[in-house]
Amino acid sequence: MDPTLSPREIYNVMMQHDAFSDWLGLELDEVGAGYCKMHFTIRREMLNGFSTTHGGIIFAAADSAFAFACNSHGMLTVALDVHIVYTKATTLGDLIDIEARELSRGNKTGVYEIRITRQNELIALFRGTAYQTSKTVASLK
Amino acid sequence: MDPTLSPREIYNVMMQHDAFSDWLGLELDEVGAGYCKMHFTIRREMLNGFSTTHGGIIFAAADSAFAFACNSHGMLTVALDVHIVYTKATTLGDLIDIEARELSRGNKTGVYEIRITRQNELIALFRGTAYQTSKTVASLK
Amino acid sequence: MDPTLSPREIYNVMMQHDAFSDWLGLELDEVGAGYCKMHFTIRREMLNGFSTTHGGIIFAAADSAFAFACNSHGMLTVALDVHIVYTKATTLGDLIDIEARELSRGNKTGVYEIRITRQNELIALFRGTAYQTSKTVASLK
Amino acid sequence: MDPTLSPREIYNVMMQHDAFSDWLGLELDEVGAGYCKMHFTIRREMLNGFSTTHGGIIFAAADSAFAFACNSHGMLTVALDVHIVYTKATTLGDLIDIEARELSRGNKTGVYEIRITRQNELIALFRGTAYQTSKTVASLK
Repeated sequence: MDPTLSPREIYNVMMQHDAFSDWLGLELDEVGAGYCKMHFTIRREMLNGFSTTHGGIIFAAADSAFAFACNSHGMLTVALDVHIVYTKATTLGDLIDIEARELSRGNKTGVYEIRITRQNELIALFRGTAYQTSKTVASLK
Repeated sequence: MDPTLSPREIYNVMMQHDAFSDWLGLELDEVGAGYCKMHFTIRREMLNGFSTTHGGIIFAAADSAFAFACNSHGMLTVALDVHIVYTKATTLGDLIDIEARELSRGNKTGVYEIRITRQNELIALFRGTAYQTSKTVASLK
Repeated sequence: MDPTLSPREIYNVMMQHDAFSDWLGLELDEVGAGYCKMHFTIRREMLNGFSTTHGGIIFAAADSAFAFACNSHGMLTVALDVHIVYTKATTLGDLIDIEARELSRGNKTGVYEIRITRQNELIALFRGTAYQTSKTVASLK
Repeated sequence: MDPTLSPREIYNVMMQHDAFSDWLGLELDEVGAGYCKMHFTIRREMLNGFSTTHGGIIFAAADSAFAFACNSHGMLTVALDVHIVYTKATTLGDLIDIEARELSRGNKTGVYEIRITRQNELIALFRGTAYQTSKTVASLK
């Protein structure tokens, strides 16, 4: 753990250069130790050939919240692997909520669950394993 | 199976409205029954806060190739769930190859493996389970 | 859905011939629509070469609870794929609780989450996708 | 890496106390650096209530081969998480082959793919992420 930056300051360092989270239009609701809550709205360029949201968009938004949650302790942390299950399709204009929580955290690895919902209806469930490097997020500034 | 359209024609129907695959800049190398090979290049707006490619971009490109492979038989087919493992980070300007293959196909479900490589080096492995609906892709035209 | 058997009767039909769940020593706490809670104790023959519980034992116990939960609606239902994350090792004599819940259920497929705990401490998380066939469990009697 | 033991000697140390792999009846075909090939036969006590092989048996056999492959470098290595897809059911008397290969190996983590086949027909695909501890397998002797 790196005590020099708060979870919110770490988020700010990360978001400063996160071009794709910016493109997604992710808005922060709350960030804390091992936690991140965000939301965004489905735009026309996020759709696939079936006029539903491209699976990669839902994944990417959850992956961003996962990154903010697992880096919140201050050490630079990267995704090892992810499993995602889709339960409902979404489409243009839908408002999507994303909530990332830490399920367990060991010495070098941690497990996170990210719930993707639309007005409290489950859209997808994302579970990621993260690996903590020996660099700090602060060193990126 | 819907014999009215070839895998290439199905791809064309799907790509006609696939705004996000278009944004990703995916270029088709080959499409066949249960198969799709594509490539694209990492642009600045695809990076995360660590100046590496956002995990959602790699996932999304693989997810598109997965969709083209599993819909190639002519029935509208959707992703149920996906597991992705990341083995290398990529960055600005990297040329990424994506190859989707069918591992097995039952009555209603199929399993696909998508290899993501950079000059033959493994970047990520994506495995998806797809569910075949009773509509045809041709009905979307 | 097959209304001729209750979840408890379906469980009884399935357990009558389930030799491996029997070997595991699984004891039922509760079974209902889309739900199953069980427990068992780690025996010597369940250990691996590191004197911890073999990963396959934890998986198998969760897989049984998953099967009882997803078959509880009366239609013969099989696992398509599973993702499991291990958060703690267990060993000889540990009492393991297993709780399977339905997260979502569509026309032919469903998603289930199985929590494996030891005195409320998370040991592993199992998430399974199930596929519902057109046979009933009752037809197996 | 621990150069004091060969992959075969490491396998022998691990199998000496691996009670559950012994119960499964796993027979070694070949073991090497990052590699393990085994086979076994489905017995009556490995079946579930549908008279097919319990999913946990297939998983457990693959998990053993995964453990032998990822520990073959000499450092004690444990499973972080696994994704398994089932493509065919098996039953009493079936001879099952299991082949574990290393897909990538970093400083602390590695990715392994285990193919489960019956006479060259794909039964299941298991992909595991392993975490390397700082102890050696030799220290277990």
